[in-house]
Amino acid sequence: MPDQPPPAGDQFVQSLARGLSVIRAFDHDHPEMTLSEVAARVGFSRATARRFLHTLVELDYVRTDGRTFALTPQVLRLGTAYLSGLALPDVAQPHLEQLSATVGESTSAAVLDRDDVVYVARVATRRIMSVGITVGTRFPAYATSMGRVLLAALPTEELETYLAEVTLRPLTTHALADVEALRDELAQVRDRGWAAVDQELEPGLRSIAAPVRNKEGTVVAALNVSASTSSVGVDDLVGAALPALLETAARVGDDLALTRP
Amino acid sequence: MPDQPPPAGDQFVQSLARGLSVIRAFDHDHPEMTLSEVAARVGFSRATARRFLHTLVELDYVRTDGRTFALTPQVLRLGTAYLSGLALPDVAQPHLEQLSATVGESTSAAVLDRDDVVYVARVATRRIMSVGITVGTRFPAYATSMGRVLLAALPTEELETYLAEVTLRPLTTHALADVEALRDELAQVRDRGWAAVDQELEPGLRSIAAPVRNKEGTVVAALNVSASTSSVGVDDLVGAALPALLETAARVGDDLALTRP
Repeated sequence: MPDQPPPAGDQFVQSLARGLSVIRAFDHDHPEMTLSEVAARVGFSRATARRFLHTLVELDYVRTDGRTFALTPQVLRLGTAYLSGLALPDVAQPHLEQLSATVGESTSAAVLDRDDVVYVARVATRRIMSVGITVGTRFPAYATSMGRVLLAALPTEELETYLAEVTLRPLTTHALADVEALRDELAQVRDRGWAAVDQELEPGLRSIAAPVRNKEGTVVAALNVSASTSSVGVDDLVGAALPALLETAARVGDDLALTRP
Repeated sequence: MPDQPPPAGDQFVQSLARGLSVIRAFDHDHPEMTLSEVAARVGFSRATARRFLHTLVELDYVRTDGRTFALTPQVLRLGTAYLSGLALPDVAQPHLEQLSATVGESTSAAVLDRDDVVYVARVATRRIMSVGITVGTRFPAYATSMGRVLLAALPTEELETYLAEVTLRPLTTHALADVEALRDELAQVRDRGWAAVDQELEPGLRSIAAPVRNKEGTVVAALNVSASTSSVGVDDLVGAALPALLETAARVGDDLALTRP
C-alpha cells in the first residue's frame, strides 16, 4: 500500500483515523462530493479516497449514484451511540418539557467538551436563533450561559489552563472585553449559582443557565432557558424563569442520582 | 498483524469497519466498558481491541480513566456531519415550530432509511412516548404514520421487495394483521395523500403524517403531528391538525426547492 504513510506508533490504527476524516469531510457546504472532491478535502490520493469511500458504501454509511457520494442516516447511529449511553438526555427531557411549558420559552441541556458547550437535549418553543440548534450543536463555552456555568465549575487548575489558552472572539457587540472580564464573570457565576448571557452569542438572544449536580455535588451538566430580546427583558427573564430553572436543575440532578448509582 | 483477518477484497478497509464497530459497541446498556468487555462485544482479541480503543482515545472520540472506556461528545460530530449536509432539518424546523404552536401538539420530520423511519427534526410539546424521541431515533416504518407515507411513495418494485422481506412484529394490540393489510393501507395512504396511525407503535399514541415533495414531485421526507390518546381522539386529530399539516408539508417542499436548485 504505497499511499499509506507509516502509522504513528504501532498502537495507532491510521486507517481508522483516515476513515473517520472521510466521514467528517462531508458537511453543510459539502453534502455531496465526487471522488476527486473527497480526495482533495482530506488530502488523500484518489486511490486511497476510493478505498475508504468504497468501504463506507459497503458498510452503508455512504451512498453513491456512481458519480457523487453522500452520507446516509446510518451515520446518525454513531452519534446516537454516545447519546444513548448518556443518562442525561433521557432524564432531562421530561423536565425540560415541563420547564418549557411553565415559562413559555425554549429550554436545553448541555455538557462541556473541551472548549465547547454541546447540546444533548432541547425543547424548542419557537425559532429564536438564526441558526437552528439541535442535539449535537456546539458553541464556544465562554459566549453561552450554559458554558459559563460549566466553566465556573471547573477545578481551579483546569479553569486557569482554559483561560490561558482560550481566544475570545467577540461574536456580538455585547461580548465580554477580555479574559479578565471572563474570569470575573465566572467567579460571580460560581458565587450565585447561575449565569445570564445577554446577546453575547447572537443579537436578540438572551439566556439564563443553572448547573446540574450529581450526588457527589459535582457539576455534570447545565440547563438553560433562552428567550428573544423582543419577548422579554433580561431582568424579566431572571425574575420569571430563574426559580423554575433552579428547581428543574435540582430535580434533574436528583433523578440522575437514581439512574446509575 | 496475526489477529487481523484477510481483508474482504483489496478495496475494503477492514480496520475502518472494525473501528466503527467499536464505536457502535457502546450503547444504552454499555455506556462504559473495560477493554475485555469491548473485546468480547465486538469479537476481537484484547490486543486488537486495545489498538482500536487507543486510536479512538488519541482521536478524542473515546475517553478512559485507565480502566473503563466511554464515548465522548466528539462522536456526535460524525452524526451531525450527516445532518448538516441535509437541507431538510434546517428548512423544516421553523415550519414544525409554527405547526406545533398552531395545533398544540408535537411535530416531527423523518426520512426513510431502508426499513426504518429516522427522525431528522422534531418539536416536542410534551412527553407522550415511553421512550424519548430525538433526532436519529428509528422505528420500523410500517408501524408509524411517517413510515407509511414514505413506504406508500416507493416505486412499485421497491415496495414489493420491502413487502416480500419485511417481518411485521405487532408492537401493540392495534397492529395491522399482516402484509396484505399493510399493502391495502399503503394503497389508501397513496390515494388520499396522508396516513394516520392509532396506537400501532405505542399504546396511547396516535399520529398523522403527510409527504414532503421536492420540485420534481418526488416524496423526500414526511412530517407528522403526534398526540396522546388522552388529549385527542383520532378523528379530532385529523379534523384539527390535518389541514395545517398538509399546508406545512407543502411549504417545506417549496422551501426545499429553493435551497439546492
